Amino acid sequence: MFSNIQAITARWIIPIIPAKTILENYTLIIDNDCIIDLLPRDIAMNKYSGIELEEFETHVLMPGLINTHTHLAMNLFKGMADDLELEDWLQNYIWPAESATLSHKMVEDGTTLALFESIQSGVTCVNDHYFFSEAVSKAVIKAGVRARISHCIFSFPLPWIDDVETYFEQSNKLINDYKSNPYIYPCLGPHAPYTTDDEIMDKVTSLSQKHDIPVHIHLHETKKEVDDFIKDKGKSPVAYFHEKKWLHNNFIAVHMTQMTEAEAEMLSQNNVSIAHCPESNMKLSSGAFNWELANKYNINVSLGTDGAASNNDLDMLGESKSASFLAKLQFGPKSLNVFEALEMLTINGAKALKLEDEIGSLEIGKKADFIAINMDSLDCEPIYNIASQVIFASTRNQITDSWVHGKRIMKDRNVLTLNEEQIRAQTQLWQKKIIDSINQK
Amino acid sequence: MFSNIQAITARWIIPIIPAKTILENYTLIIDNDCIIDLLPRDIAMNKYSGIELEEFETHVLMPGLINTHTHLAMNLFKGMADDLELEDWLQNYIWPAESATLSHKMVEDGTTLALFESIQSGVTCVNDHYFFSEAVSKAVIKAGVRARISHCIFSFPLPWIDDVETYFEQSNKLINDYKSNPYIYPCLGPHAPYTTDDEIMDKVTSLSQKHDIPVHIHLHETKKEVDDFIKDKGKSPVAYFHEKKWLHNNFIAVHMTQMTEAEAEMLSQNNVSIAHCPESNMKLSSGAFNWELANKYNINVSLGTDGAASNNDLDMLGESKSASFLAKLQFGPKSLNVFEALEMLTINGAKALKLEDEIGSLEIGKKADFIAINMDSLDCEPIYNIASQVIFASTRNQITDSWVHGKRIMKDRNVLTLNEEQIRAQTQLWQKKIIDSINQK
Repeated sequence: MFSNIQAITARWIIPIIPAKTILENYTLIIDNDCIIDLLPRDIAMNKYSGIELEEFETHVLMPGLINTHTHLAMNLFKGMADDLELEDWLQNYIWPAESATLSHKMVEDGTTLALFESIQSGVTCVNDHYFFSEAVSKAVIKAGVRARISHCIFSFPLPWIDDVETYFEQSNKLINDYKSNPYIYPCLGPHAPYTTDDEIMDKVTSLSQKHDIPVHIHLHETKKEVDDFIKDKGKSPVAYFHEKKWLHNNFIAVHMTQMTEAEAEMLSQNNVSIAHCPESNMKLSSGAFNWELANKYNINVSLGTDGAASNNDLDMLGESKSASFLAKLQFGPKSLNVFEALEMLTINGAKALKLEDEIGSLEIGKKADFIAINMDSLDCEPIYNIASQVIFASTRNQITDSWVHGKRIMKDRNVLTLNEEQIRAQTQLWQKKIIDSINQK
Repeated sequence: MFSNIQAITARWIIPIIPAKTILENYTLIIDNDCIIDLLPRDIAMNKYSGIELEEFETHVLMPGLINTHTHLAMNLFKGMADDLELEDWLQNYIWPAESATLSHKMVEDGTTLALFESIQSGVTCVNDHYFFSEAVSKAVIKAGVRARISHCIFSFPLPWIDDVETYFEQSNKLINDYKSNPYIYPCLGPHAPYTTDDEIMDKVTSLSQKHDIPVHIHLHETKKEVDDFIKDKGKSPVAYFHEKKWLHNNFIAVHMTQMTEAEAEMLSQNNVSIAHCPESNMKLSSGAFNWELANKYNINVSLGTDGAASNNDLDMLGESKSASFLAKLQFGPKSLNVFEALEMLTINGAKALKLEDEIGSLEIGKKADFIAINMDSLDCEPIYNIASQVIFASTRNQITDSWVHGKRIMKDRNVLTLNEEQIRAQTQLWQKKIIDSINQK
């Protein structure tokens, strides 16, 4: 009768919706890939008496974390070149390495490495922005997480892309191949205002509308980007995009470290989401995102780690703490509180990716994408407020278990879908090739 | 012949001195509590052939981390009241809780809880600033770490301190009791410029000179503190302290989020050390310390977590990453690089505490205080630069082993000197009392 049903009890459940709610000793009931009930443990014991209860006596259960901006395959460049000026970093390290080594296999292996780290960091859904989307999709399906995937689009060729038409061919292939895959959701990835043009953005916008899929773009990452654009076009990228009608409710603006009140209003009017990447913005000295201004205009703000080459981890829990600290430094100690941080990690990410009907909260009818965090550490004692301990006192190493579509993908920190030693061996091979490519430049 | 000798080999050793050095497959030789050799593994195998080699094949060995500003016992208040304005936090939570619950036993138990977290975070030496120093000392000796300990000094009584003379009695007792203890180093702890006065500071300064021990004080923590002081005295605390000759080379200025060029020059002239607490400064919205200005004036800058009630962890590795990110955000991506971060965590801390002849680097003749960090995690792959992976890609959970005075205090993350379950039970008892005290206020 209950053959495909799982019953999971936890000391605490943070469902995210309803807001600011902490349930104690509740049980989550899952039928196949769906949440069908969420009720006090005692009642669950009767109502679902035939089902074995899995107990997480010292854990928090919460929705899986959603990383809304990353370049997964760049994990292969992690720590290759830190503490450098952006130009030096890109021109003398990242671009030569990419030019010499990027391939389907390299992206598949790099993405797999990053997904291993992501799963161990409690991430159940990513928004990836890179090349060789076929390879990314293959790695994502194997890892068993969800992903919005976009193929980068530039207005000029790159060493591994012969002509501009290829960007759209790849994007269209992604859209056609993954119309109804439960793990892969296509997305459009124009790189940035300074690397695309009107024709590209018109085409991207009409594809987005035609297929009802999001646009995922770097926007207002640095002051220089905005200043240069204003010099060229007489207005900022956001103002220009607004005028051109390229902003809409299926648009993810990544970074936005520069934002005037007028620009916030434009983003708000068009229901644009912002993917905030505080650690990358700090590490690359890009600027500090104005969270209170976004909040004032009711803009949906989610979180991203950016690629591991500018972070250098895919630790979303750490990212939320950094986001909160940065907002508090700018706006006072009440800014970006723990419940706001929890929403940025989950439901706001789902909204940005237009997946809020499926994921982002533990509600009846939603998909069973969730994680368990073990609070049984003296680092988290005493527990006055469990939400505060999750955001400010825990590390990602406490995230022990993870489910996507109701299927366990991590158990006691063992990633069930991927082979750690195989990934290590592949990674070390790529490392050698990357070092050779830089030495030869 | 070699009965008290330990030989420990590691894949990487970062000795800190010489600067920017990474040794691969070296062996550290320890005789009792002292480092007597540091040499390539192959040579060590011959030279010390009678000794069993302990091998750390995937680890970094480095000096133990030195937390140069904390209030250990406040771990009992961790997460009690986050996301609040400073006044609200102090007046409605921290002070009522302290007034109702502070005692010798409470400080001993709270300090022990914090030392458990500290040891698991790779800390081998702390600079504590709190009350009931007897209790702090007792906990420190049991835990087997080093500590500079100061009893807070105010110019007015507190609910648990009858009169001002008691502050000095307690401080003098500390100085007399721990003249030659290998773990405890006395220190003087005037609270802050706005909570002390001329008489107090004169007395503190002469005690510091008489006994050659450091002064450890909160200084320029917030803009309001500096503005109020200027309104009252016509100059900033640093300028006033300089004029009064209270600044000297045995002086640790904690926070310094506000610092003019003239003030940096005064601190530099007097060889004052700064204990930088970036996460507390961000979380409480105190301000952003100007690391480049301190650097310009060759001021010694170490790191501190502050108390766990305003952080909310004692994770020094995380603190160094936050310090680097904050400096990069302010001054560009080359600011506060990985080797500078490693020095802040170790030798700069030793210099601040005037213990640089004993600890802070892995040099022949120094005490054997060191830690092992396991880099055998896919989160740290690929390894282009091991120093970068330690600072930007590791978490404290990778710190597996720790030695103080050559004695192992943590093995495979088990703290050998403390009883985890006993600490948990004590902590939960105190939590109940603290909650009652707040509810009754």
